[in-house]
Amino acid sequence: MHEHFMRIAIEEAKKGIGAVNPNPLVGAVIVKNNKIISVGHHEFYGGPHAEVNALKNLESVEGATLYVTLEPCSHFGKTPPCTELIIKSKIKTCIVGTLDPNPLVSGRGIKQLKDAGIEVIIGVLENETKNLNRVFFKYIQNKIPYIFIKCGITLDGKIATKNFSSKWITNSLAREKVEKYRNFFSGILVGANTVIQDNPSLRCKVSNHRNPYRLILDKDLIIDEKYSIINNNSDCKTFIITLDKNIKTKKFQELKEKFSINFITFSKEENLMDILSKIGSYNIDSVLVEGGSSVLSLFFKESLFDGGEIIIAPKILGDNSAIPFLNGFSPNLIDEGINLENVKFNIYDNNVGVEFYKEDGCLPV
Amino acid sequence: MHEHFMRIAIEEAKKGIGAVNPNPLVGAVIVKNNKIISVGHHEFYGGPHAEVNALKNLESVEGATLYVTLEPCSHFGKTPPCTELIIKSKIKTCIVGTLDPNPLVSGRGIKQLKDAGIEVIIGVLENETKNLNRVFFKYIQNKIPYIFIKCGITLDGKIATKNFSSKWITNSLAREKVEKYRNFFSGILVGANTVIQDNPSLRCKVSNHRNPYRLILDKDLIIDEKYSIINNNSDCKTFIITLDKNIKTKKFQELKEKFSINFITFSKEENLMDILSKIGSYNIDSVLVEGGSSVLSLFFKESLFDGGEIIIAPKILGDNSAIPFLNGFSPNLIDEGINLENVKFNIYDNNVGVEFYKEDGCLPV
Repeated sequence: MHEHFMRIAIEEAKKGIGAVNPNPLVGAVIVKNNKIISVGHHEFYGGPHAEVNALKNLESVEGATLYVTLEPCSHFGKTPPCTELIIKSKIKTCIVGTLDPNPLVSGRGIKQLKDAGIEVIIGVLENETKNLNRVFFKYIQNKIPYIFIKCGITLDGKIATKNFSSKWITNSLAREKVEKYRNFFSGILVGANTVIQDNPSLRCKVSNHRNPYRLILDKDLIIDEKYSIINNNSDCKTFIITLDKNIKTKKFQELKEKFSINFITFSKEENLMDILSKIGSYNIDSVLVEGGSSVLSLFFKESLFDGGEIIIAPKILGDNSAIPFLNGFSPNLIDEGINLENVKFNIYDNNVGVEFYKEDGCLPV
Repeated sequence: MHEHFMRIAIEEAKKGIGAVNPNPLVGAVIVKNNKIISVGHHEFYGGPHAEVNALKNLESVEGATLYVTLEPCSHFGKTPPCTELIIKSKIKTCIVGTLDPNPLVSGRGIKQLKDAGIEVIIGVLENETKNLNRVFFKYIQNKIPYIFIKCGITLDGKIATKNFSSKWITNSLAREKVEKYRNFFSGILVGANTVIQDNPSLRCKVSNHRNPYRLILDKDLIIDEKYSIINNNSDCKTFIITLDKNIKTKKFQELKEKFSINFITFSKEENLMDILSKIGSYNIDSVLVEGGSSVLSLFFKESLFDGGEIIIAPKILGDNSAIPFLNGFSPNLIDEGINLENVKFNIYDNNVGVEFYKEDGCLPV
């Protein structure tokens, strides 16, 4: 019974995908006499919490049960604490999916509810409710974005032919899934060579989407206004990540002033983790790393990923001059290679996605 | 109802896997008053047919229904025609899965039964009954063996590290499936380099198995008695396929006389199809092509395969000096590569098999 209503609360929470980052996804369901009388979810960043949305416009919820995927907040943030509202509303029982890892909240919300005489049950569908907020749970701790790797490859591990033809390796169903990822994560990161080869828009095609931040790793500042992500930047969401020595160049100044490009700069001494930390400082809680080969290899080499999905098409290029998915390692034994863990498979007609995570659990995409 | 009993007949037929080649897999079920009174299958090459096994030891089957996966034979082969026996037994109805493509049989068996007043229904679970005998149907036509490609690769399309380490790429569940293939096909083919690198036994580890023929493509006769497939040949199932210029060498004669190695020789002018035709002449109706890279590439390049399964492990070698799954093509566009068709996926815990066929349908493995 509890699981049934919690499952509905989880579906409610998912309605916030793409809109709430870097806040958590939260859903709430209010049940009275075994009937749902209201539902609510956290709808947009800084907006009212799920509990508030579920409780609003209700005359009396005295004696009702509140199902909420994440521990109710007990502090003043962008909105007043939810615990106060719940106590005032005379909810009798509060069923919580998972505790909030936010040190400002964790356990305190539960304590306030219990102190007010509300019965509290914790951990109903705990894994599923945790999965809603793998991104939030990581980002809240040290402001390093959640990193998810996405790539479409042939059966023989290639991402393009020798002359960079790559349209299309994966099928339309698989590409639809990629759009869902683009809606889910706050930013997309690609290398400068991918921009030069493909001139991608890096927009999201999901309806009612928001576009992700476009992050271009371009240490030598080789891209210019020819490319769509530069000349089509009216939303000011393009970031170029480049070496600090380029700050003084005319191109840097022009791109910044004429095209409102944001820059993240780093010194030769700084590493990928330093760069991720700088990305995180812009409220970008999660990054979808899309390619190309050298960018993907960098993230795998440094083991700086939380998860990913590699989508395989049943095609063979069979050409050692074709562009490989990854490169730059040199293991002697199979076990010295990278072993992806917590693997699951997604079948898209004749394509298969290999989804993997560093930690147990998965994303609600 | 018909499908229910035909499904049981199909399961009966599968009991002959590994034992009947190059004969077909056939299962039969006899039903009277809606109850199964007998089952039978074709048990071994040249042995009694499924119908005979189902009918033996029964007192009376007058008025009963016979379900048989393949059209009953009407000619004297290694055994007398089944149609005679069926007519004599006073079976009332005969339900047939699929017609026999064998020009000696096709349609004639059905005609004999009908002429004798037996009601005949054809095409119950036609696809599934056809799938039992994809190998037989191909081989009967022109004596070219059915070719199935099997390979275990990393996510980035490699079959070994730069120094040929390949143990183990795939997991134990996937390797169990490979043993089933080794039991299903009459022969296994590998290249001489695979013998030199891995010294494989090329035996089948399935219980109650028969070992397949071991076919080594070794045009320059570089392997010798050091290797298991040579010095462990008491069943005389090792074949070496080599250029005819090697016939005169001392090694050729020694391997033939001392180790009872069979040789298939070919001239420089002959191609892979000629070689397959010679393999077929030894009653080898099907070959599992297991590797290595250059042998697999040869079969893909000439498009001489009927199906295959590539099993992918979630491992990354990321090394362009590692041994690639395939090589030697050079397409400019994605669509100029090989497109595998009729794809289905088999999940083995954290490995995934990509099974594919030139023609619609699949094997009963």
